[in-house]
Amino acid sequence: MNGLWLTDQKLAFRQDLPFSQPGPGEALLRVRLAGICSTDLEMVRGYYPFSGIPGHEFVGEIISLGPSDAEASRSGPEVASLVPGVRVAGEITIACHSCENCRAGRTGHCEQRKVLGLMGHDGVFAEFVTLPLENLHPVPPSIPDEAAVFTEPLAAALEIQQQVNILPSDHVLVIGAGRLGQLIAQTLALTGCQLAVLARHPNQIATLKARGIQTINESALPNQLMDVVVEATGNPAGFELARRLVRPRGTILLKSTYAGAFSVDFSQIVVDEITLIGSRCGPFAAALQLLQANLVDPTLLIEGRFKLSEGLGAFQFAGQTGIMKVLISPE
Amino acid sequence: MNGLWLTDQKLAFRQDLPFSQPGPGEALLRVRLAGICSTDLEMVRGYYPFSGIPGHEFVGEIISLGPSDAEASRSGPEVASLVPGVRVAGEITIACHSCENCRAGRTGHCEQRKVLGLMGHDGVFAEFVTLPLENLHPVPPSIPDEAAVFTEPLAAALEIQQQVNILPSDHVLVIGAGRLGQLIAQTLALTGCQLAVLARHPNQIATLKARGIQTINESALPNQLMDVVVEATGNPAGFELARRLVRPRGTILLKSTYAGAFSVDFSQIVVDEITLIGSRCGPFAAALQLLQANLVDPTLLIEGRFKLSEGLGAFQFAGQTGIMKVLISPE
Repeated sequence: MNGLWLTDQKLAFRQDLPFSQPGPGEALLRVRLAGICSTDLEMVRGYYPFSGIPGHEFVGEIISLGPSDAEASRSGPEVASLVPGVRVAGEITIACHSCENCRAGRTGHCEQRKVLGLMGHDGVFAEFVTLPLENLHPVPPSIPDEAAVFTEPLAAALEIQQQVNILPSDHVLVIGAGRLGQLIAQTLALTGCQLAVLARHPNQIATLKARGIQTINESALPNQLMDVVVEATGNPAGFELARRLVRPRGTILLKSTYAGAFSVDFSQIVVDEITLIGSRCGPFAAALQLLQANLVDPTLLIEGRFKLSEGLGAFQFAGQTGIMKVLISPE
Repeated sequence: MNGLWLTDQKLAFRQDLPFSQPGPGEALLRVRLAGICSTDLEMVRGYYPFSGIPGHEFVGEIISLGPSDAEASRSGPEVASLVPGVRVAGEITIACHSCENCRAGRTGHCEQRKVLGLMGHDGVFAEFVTLPLENLHPVPPSIPDEAAVFTEPLAAALEIQQQVNILPSDHVLVIGAGRLGQLIAQTLALTGCQLAVLARHPNQIATLKARGIQTINESALPNQLMDVVVEATGNPAGFELARRLVRPRGTILLKSTYAGAFSVDFSQIVVDEITLIGSRCGPFAAALQLLQANLVDPTLLIEGRFKLSEGLGAFQFAGQTGIMKVLISPE
């Protein structure tokens, strides 16, 4: 099949990629649309080790099911609706169901996990992909592919509300207005909180303004200390700013990957009783609900759409400063 | 009056110290018993800047009240019971009641705060001390001075339960079994959680065993990952261990002062969705309730008792490795 192939930090378009057959409890999916995420760009730059087909943001369609799963416990009403022809979004962590974390219900933190297009499992920058049925969520017909392809990053944005109770009276600042920062801002705006986003690039500011979200810049920071700060830049300067702008007993959400360790003054964290929360993947069902109800509009972020055969160009375009979402379609 | 005086990191016993008069809304207290805390030792070692009478852990007795407070809002039923002769414990933060934090109810984080024996307000290693009435809590008669003197550090230990809901099913590890670690362990044990304390010194291990608390050492760490880890050593190695032993989505409480900044790998915090919580002063009423109900026994920690005139010797003794609580009485 056609697909992008990454090895030794070299990305290539190939037409001879092996075709995976779905195993027991798995489905074979045709990829309808896929999105390039910051982690994909970091993989190609060598900051994240992976060899194989990258890509983990997608909307697809069930082509066929693997042999029926012996473990009946994993099939239920959800799984019954997963039949060929159904359009789906897919959770990216493939869990072992036997380690301590899985048994405690934290399958997203499975100790032997594989992760779609990121760790030990081929991803979605290809014509076809396999995933366990339990990872799949049917996409309601009213959601177009161009919105459904954002289910995974939108779910990641919504993880914040899973971890922290955001009140309308809360002053909330999002630092960083890139791919994830935009979705975080759109979902936080729904809470009615006093929201501001620190944004740099004109296109990012425009997208936020289109949703009625207040933007600020580094030369005019708020005097008001924040109840909650979301750090979505992934760099130490962003964290330092978050630390400076959060109120005593406030919360900083770490909503980005950080390259390497950096130095933190923990005395300040203790004296001001700050809470720091690491935040990663989130709830797919909630994300699909918001898309279906039209409460968020991720399609504003789309800045380019490429064919699979133009994948290298897509990566080059997506890697430019300030560019938000770039999509890849197999056709 | 007699007291200890710290200036330029030099501690001295002096008999000529000026006697403060209580201002409006304040009380003059006779110190009955005071305790040496790690922060006091750090002040003398020059890690923490302060000039004046140190000391903030104490039990005292009201001698006289200052002129009545014009701001009637601050007097209430609590304050009515604060009359000469009453024994009291005292909260250490003296708040301005006009800054943003005070107005938001976070008086402990007042931006213009003075802190008893720590910042801008003379402390309790003296015969007498003044404090606002609103800082004072009457000590029930059944609590002896030797237990009541622990109200402040016991409250600080209990701040953990204010911040995190500890369940009986939780595996909880306390790293560090010094002054504060011991009190943390005693209060956590009340929750019925699966508790272990990493302890080094024989006397610290003995005190924990006396309360039926399980101790472990660095050469035999648990295989089980912890739901909650309390870092009570204040050194980077303690934090690194906490990080290694906490489960994904688990919580690390930073329950110590840290000297300077140190390096942290935030990627791990994000990927494992760890929550870090800075934790400082806590609820005095809760501490006094536990002491009155005899549910904790801080007197096990007492390793020495000195007169004010022997204060320098008391500090020298308290500064030795593994020594827990040293008390100073004015007589």
